[in-house]
Amino acid sequence: MNTDQYYMQLALDLAKSARGKTHPNPLVGAIIVKDGVIAGTGIHRKAGEPHAEVHAFRMAGDYAKGATLYVTLEPCSHYGKTPPCANLVKESGVSRVVVAMQDPNPEVAGRGIELLRNAGIEVEVGVLEQEAKRLNEVFIHNMLKNRPFVISKFAMTLDGKLATHTGHSKWITGEQARHAVHQLRNEVDGILVGVGTVLADNPSLTTRLPEGGGRNPVRVILDSELRTPLDAAVVHTHEAKTIIVTTDTADRTKLEALQAKGVEFIFVAKTESGLDLEAMLAELYKKGITELLVEGGGEVNASFLRAGLIDKYFIYIAPKLLGGRNSLTPFTGLDVDSMDEAWNVTFDKVDTFGEDLRITAYPNQGENR
Amino acid sequence: MNTDQYYMQLALDLAKSARGKTHPNPLVGAIIVKDGVIAGTGIHRKAGEPHAEVHAFRMAGDYAKGATLYVTLEPCSHYGKTPPCANLVKESGVSRVVVAMQDPNPEVAGRGIELLRNAGIEVEVGVLEQEAKRLNEVFIHNMLKNRPFVISKFAMTLDGKLATHTGHSKWITGEQARHAVHQLRNEVDGILVGVGTVLADNPSLTTRLPEGGGRNPVRVILDSELRTPLDAAVVHTHEAKTIIVTTDTADRTKLEALQAKGVEFIFVAKTESGLDLEAMLAELYKKGITELLVEGGGEVNASFLRAGLIDKYFIYIAPKLLGGRNSLTPFTGLDVDSMDEAWNVTFDKVDTFGEDLRITAYPNQGENR
Repeated sequence: MNTDQYYMQLALDLAKSARGKTHPNPLVGAIIVKDGVIAGTGIHRKAGEPHAEVHAFRMAGDYAKGATLYVTLEPCSHYGKTPPCANLVKESGVSRVVVAMQDPNPEVAGRGIELLRNAGIEVEVGVLEQEAKRLNEVFIHNMLKNRPFVISKFAMTLDGKLATHTGHSKWITGEQARHAVHQLRNEVDGILVGVGTVLADNPSLTTRLPEGGGRNPVRVILDSELRTPLDAAVVHTHEAKTIIVTTDTADRTKLEALQAKGVEFIFVAKTESGLDLEAMLAELYKKGITELLVEGGGEVNASFLRAGLIDKYFIYIAPKLLGGRNSLTPFTGLDVDSMDEAWNVTFDKVDTFGEDLRITAYPNQGENR
Repeated sequence: MNTDQYYMQLALDLAKSARGKTHPNPLVGAIIVKDGVIAGTGIHRKAGEPHAEVHAFRMAGDYAKGATLYVTLEPCSHYGKTPPCANLVKESGVSRVVVAMQDPNPEVAGRGIELLRNAGIEVEVGVLEQEAKRLNEVFIHNMLKNRPFVISKFAMTLDGKLATHTGHSKWITGEQARHAVHQLRNEVDGILVGVGTVLADNPSLTTRLPEGGGRNPVRVILDSELRTPLDAAVVHTHEAKTIIVTTDTADRTKLEALQAKGVEFIFVAKTESGLDLEAMLAELYKKGITELLVEGGGEVNASFLRAGLIDKYFIYIAPKLLGGRNSLTPFTGLDVDSMDEAWNVTFDKVDTFGEDLRITAYPNQGENR
């Protein structure tokens, strides 16, 4: 790790402390270094508050002259709630700017950098770019795709089973892994299951943290035939909003009964492969859901996989072997003939939660079909 | 890590360099420390050659007086090909002996230590015991169970699939993982598959290392109805011996035709759950197989699992998702109703081979039913 990477890593570490607080803005950190000493630091804490660079320059004052600015995202070049940071940088007197990544918005990407270069400032772009992109993966995805970032999460035995043939799955993983899942629910805006899960397990899909005070994501149920019972936990509990995704041919009486209990609806077309998930995601994004946790069974998971709509995987693996011909498996759907037709992912990391493992993986670039 | 652990780890590291060379003896390392300096070192290189302690005392000479001996296994107390090491230790003048683990043979365990204590030497037992037991896991298992140490190895997609519904599996994992498997074949005495694998893939089951010179394990085929074709690769290639495991009601004509091609046979009973694997393992052990690699499909794997005969797992996971209702899975066999009936294992470690992962796991103590 060279000097530039060192300070950029520090800026990234500062930035991530505001995770979940900056929406709809990205996480940004900035560090100003003058003669080997950190002269200014800043992060973007919250939408409406100053950008990271503003805090850093306020602290640095005159030390900014001739200094190097490290910033995890290209300084903005447009007038929004605050004046453009690129102007501030230009006027600050820094002689060098190191940027981790360009603005992900293709319409303005590079403009801030250009403005600085035109002012005679040396600009380096791409230091710890991959890490910066990961830090704002949800924001970037939202900006480019106009739909929620979709995380597929499931827990399976070491031999790839979600449940026994009877559907019994309590509990595959241990307490620490289950706690991590509730922590994840606390961080996302939406959580999605199929009606099959509602019928089989009647989950409340709320966030339960040992310390209390969790945030409940919006509950989204895929239910083309409105089989969700009126007395289902997702209907009669009101800690979180529930949205049922169905078609416009759904039974009116049942629909109105559910509406009367506070359930909202999204109507999409039904295609050969099931409900139109892409249309659903567009609607959910309009309703403010930027990050959706899919806690599906094999059918729901396979629908998202085949539609190319999974952006990240959290796969919990318990130290158990279940076996059996009819045990439930994480992705069902259509069979393919050849191993070449498998969907490729890249392992990002493996974490340990008690006795369990969690594999984090991403779909391969260009293979998110 | 304290001083005792430090030197014991060093002794374990020395010992493991002879892996695969000491059969039927265990791997042993010894270090003699006098006044903070290593005065003597030794390992057991090969059966028939001196034990580790002998080498260490030869090097130490007079420095042994008042020194501490670190040895990864209890010094032997019986006359074998060499005189008992416990006597040598007693006469050496060392004042303290640190032992990682007792002799695994219950009939002599503790005798060497007792002999030393009776001679007034301070003896500490159990430093890095777990590591020492892992180092000689095959030897210990052989001694206690009189059967080969069985490793279940398979490669699966991240969603727990061995192959597509058509049986296509080439290749799940990448080159580095496949190389590791050939390295593993190079280290074991026997490799076992079911006749289903012979019929489907016609493998030669030999060791192919990029540098050449691999050792071929004995090939063992489970084939209750003698379906192995006369022109199968395991029959007509002669780099390795082939043993077919069948019953005494097997077709005589086919059996003699296979025998004429050099195939050997083990006859066992057929039980409700298939061929009697425990009886087979006893026979294989008599034929000198101490470590057996099971490269089974779902049926063979499940038979070994249900019989409680798997001693270690190497599970390669490729960054792929296959899905499908009829894809092949690592353990088939009978379905159980409840997750509580799963077999429990303990994750030992996760290694990376190129893009793939390998999970090493052990059956839980007392659950190796």
